Amino acid sequence: MTLESLPLDFASVRAALRDGASPVDLVAESWRRAAACAHDGIFTALVPRETALAKAEALQARAAAGEALPLLGLTFSVKDNLHVAGLETTCNCPAFSILPEESAPAVARLEQAGAVLVGKNTMDQFATGLNGTRSPEPLCRNAVDPDYIPGGSSSGSAVAVARGLVAFALGSDTGGSGRVPAACNGIVGLKPTLGLVSTRGLVLNSRFFDCIPVFALTCPDAYEIFDLIRGHDPLDPFSRDDADTIGRAQRPEGAEGPATLAVFRPEEMPFFGDDVSRRAYEANLAVLAGQGHRFREVAFGPFAEAGRHVFQSAMVAERLVEYGAILAERPDAIHPAVRDAIEAGAAYSARDAFTALYTLRQLKRQAAAMLAGTEALVVPTVPTIFTIAAMLAEPMALNTAMGTYTYFVNPLDLCAVTVPGRARSDGLPSALCFIGRAGEDATVAALAHAFSAV
Amino acid sequence: MTLESLPLDFASVRAALRDGASPVDLVAESWRRAAACAHDGIFTALVPRETALAKAEALQARAAAGEALPLLGLTFSVKDNLHVAGLETTCNCPAFSILPEESAPAVARLEQAGAVLVGKNTMDQFATGLNGTRSPEPLCRNAVDPDYIPGGSSSGSAVAVARGLVAFALGSDTGGSGRVPAACNGIVGLKPTLGLVSTRGLVLNSRFFDCIPVFALTCPDAYEIFDLIRGHDPLDPFSRDDADTIGRAQRPEGAEGPATLAVFRPEEMPFFGDDVSRRAYEANLAVLAGQGHRFREVAFGPFAEAGRHVFQSAMVAERLVEYGAILAERPDAIHPAVRDAIEAGAAYSARDAFTALYTLRQLKRQAAAMLAGTEALVVPTVPTIFTIAAMLAEPMALNTAMGTYTYFVNPLDLCAVTVPGRARSDGLPSALCFIGRAGEDATVAALAHAFSAV
Repeated sequence: MTLESLPLDFASVRAALRDGASPVDLVAESWRRAAACAHDGIFTALVPRETALAKAEALQARAAAGEALPLLGLTFSVKDNLHVAGLETTCNCPAFSILPEESAPAVARLEQAGAVLVGKNTMDQFATGLNGTRSPEPLCRNAVDPDYIPGGSSSGSAVAVARGLVAFALGSDTGGSGRVPAACNGIVGLKPTLGLVSTRGLVLNSRFFDCIPVFALTCPDAYEIFDLIRGHDPLDPFSRDDADTIGRAQRPEGAEGPATLAVFRPEEMPFFGDDVSRRAYEANLAVLAGQGHRFREVAFGPFAEAGRHVFQSAMVAERLVEYGAILAERPDAIHPAVRDAIEAGAAYSARDAFTALYTLRQLKRQAAAMLAGTEALVVPTVPTIFTIAAMLAEPMALNTAMGTYTYFVNPLDLCAVTVPGRARSDGLPSALCFIGRAGEDATVAALAHAFSAV
Repeated sequence: MTLESLPLDFASVRAALRDGASPVDLVAESWRRAAACAHDGIFTALVPRETALAKAEALQARAAAGEALPLLGLTFSVKDNLHVAGLETTCNCPAFSILPEESAPAVARLEQAGAVLVGKNTMDQFATGLNGTRSPEPLCRNAVDPDYIPGGSSSGSAVAVARGLVAFALGSDTGGSGRVPAACNGIVGLKPTLGLVSTRGLVLNSRFFDCIPVFALTCPDAYEIFDLIRGHDPLDPFSRDDADTIGRAQRPEGAEGPATLAVFRPEEMPFFGDDVSRRAYEANLAVLAGQGHRFREVAFGPFAEAGRHVFQSAMVAERLVEYGAILAERPDAIHPAVRDAIEAGAAYSARDAFTALYTLRQLKRQAAAMLAGTEALVVPTVPTIFTIAAMLAEPMALNTAMGTYTYFVNPLDLCAVTVPGRARSDGLPSALCFIGRAGEDATVAALAHAFSAV
């Protein structure tokens, strides 16, 4: 296989290294691919070629000297709301630009492990959106069919991985931004338990709901990255105290024996008229049934209610803490749909905020009781995929639809991973999302990997 | 010793039982004492004598039949914001009255264990206050010197124990209501780690900061009660998931060897001009030093800032969730100082609420770092004690002063126990409060008990 056609899953990259490709060659190839897509709305900025190659050369020398660099030869990109020292963080809103002196700890750990950063990714501005079109031109397009939305808000991160430009990418996830674009582009999106990966260096939407997801081509690749970036951070007030010990992800080895999986009652599940999507979901469940798993139906209502709190409750006022200044000073610089979403927070009182927080605590208990005795909840990651034209014509309602099966996950303190399912009959990707209790990242990893391996 | 002069610490009661006093005799005596104080502002309501005695008789019969009833012969009272089936809950505001069908789980567990409820206690209305004078007449008075405030908000509960009317009592604690009145009346006040005792059946000020403290004459008595009422409650959304396992209180046996204790820098500690109080605190520290404990000085600033969030931040809007209705419908029925405190919450936005919550998370991390390597933080429970006349003349500022060393404890998710110290040179009580990390209730219990035993 020539380097030009090498897939960038970790196994293929490592095989190429064993076959004599150098880390510098691999980084140069990744950079070449990214640069060739520089005008496709995937990157807000590329790392200069000479910088990336110089890093690769230094790593290559360290490896030659005997240092263990687990990510040697692998490249990555990060969503443009994550700080990388010396590169502007824009949140895809140039007027917001920050030039950070320090990289997010997650980014720093990956570089220490030998990965080379290629660029920063486009996104729905301020990570507010699930469709990928709330961005300056040129719009990022779906990697499978460019007429379709890439999903958001981590649009560029997912598309960069899906198109084979980088080996993996980091994003952010509040209401589904680490899962929806993975599903739309046919790749893996790992949304860890809240508080396991430090969110320092992330421009935050919601301190209560934000986390850093991993995009990769395979489940083991994603969890390998997660294992490197997870851990307690005493400087992050939302880092879990037990972040070093709970949910220690094992390399997925396949689920051991059949599991009981929760699913929503089919008659309560919205697919927004997309019967192809519904059939793909049913086909994916049939694969699970074929693996011997049993299903237990649960009501969708409490989960939907928790999901609505992400964007239809006082919780939206969290965004004002981070974005209040630019909203006041440069409202014109913000995408109208994003501006509306941020401004909505100003309508809520402190009493509303506490009421929302209490309700979420109650719903969390209710959901935990409903999921008791099951190993995971399985949902279609997205109910449907819209064309870019349809999304632009009806930007609020269709955006909300995209979060049907993702919004509730962080408010209920659950972990999740989305993996590609059987392709839809129309060729678009389908995806299945395995959702687990806080700290049960290893369980969903094993289930998802076993499903992917069938 | 005649029954009329029997102290109601658990050891004395159990000795009386061994010497032939019956549980019915003991309950009758406790009820007699309470009834004799019926007009002293300690109780909002007494359980009818025949009801209390009928319960005692039934318990006596069960015990005679061989049932283990660990609290047999002990009586208690509960603050009037805790539900007892069939008795009105008033929060000391008759217009608010609720007639609950079910008792708070904490109350129910104590009754199951053989304790007999004698009455409901007066309190600063809506548990908003730390002095005990925010109540309808007659005002509750200090058990040691009736010219002085009893402390609040659990005024009646502490005074009932201090005056020997009941063996123990339950209260509520948001910013010090389970510690300040214990200190003012020379008894023990145990404020457990948040979420270890179910707060179901408590009319809540603050779901984030409220817990149920125990008032008793001795440290072992208090922790015996705590052991019976603690435990996970799946119906309480603020119950800790690990409530059954962490901080398992052992009967205090005396601290094993000297500890490193954090203390605030003396020059930063307010005593509001009360040098007698300062000297009593120094004398109490000298006792600890005599036990071999070492001290490490820490800054007061971050703790004071956390404390201010209890009553000077958007956190006060939590009260509007519970009291918003009566505030709107019967503002005249609420004590003016309490009404002001509740109304203050309406000035805050959702953004303010989130900002306060984020700040508290940050302060919690900061305090944890400052206390690392110490076994507990030791403070004077109250900086001074005011006369009722002084408090009524300046009700806001003097009330705030009372919370100097208690306000910060719940916002920082710490546990605490206050025990009597060496008496002040003027005969008023002094108190020392041992404050520990969440779940370290057993540690502060051991330290406090050893201090008390010197």
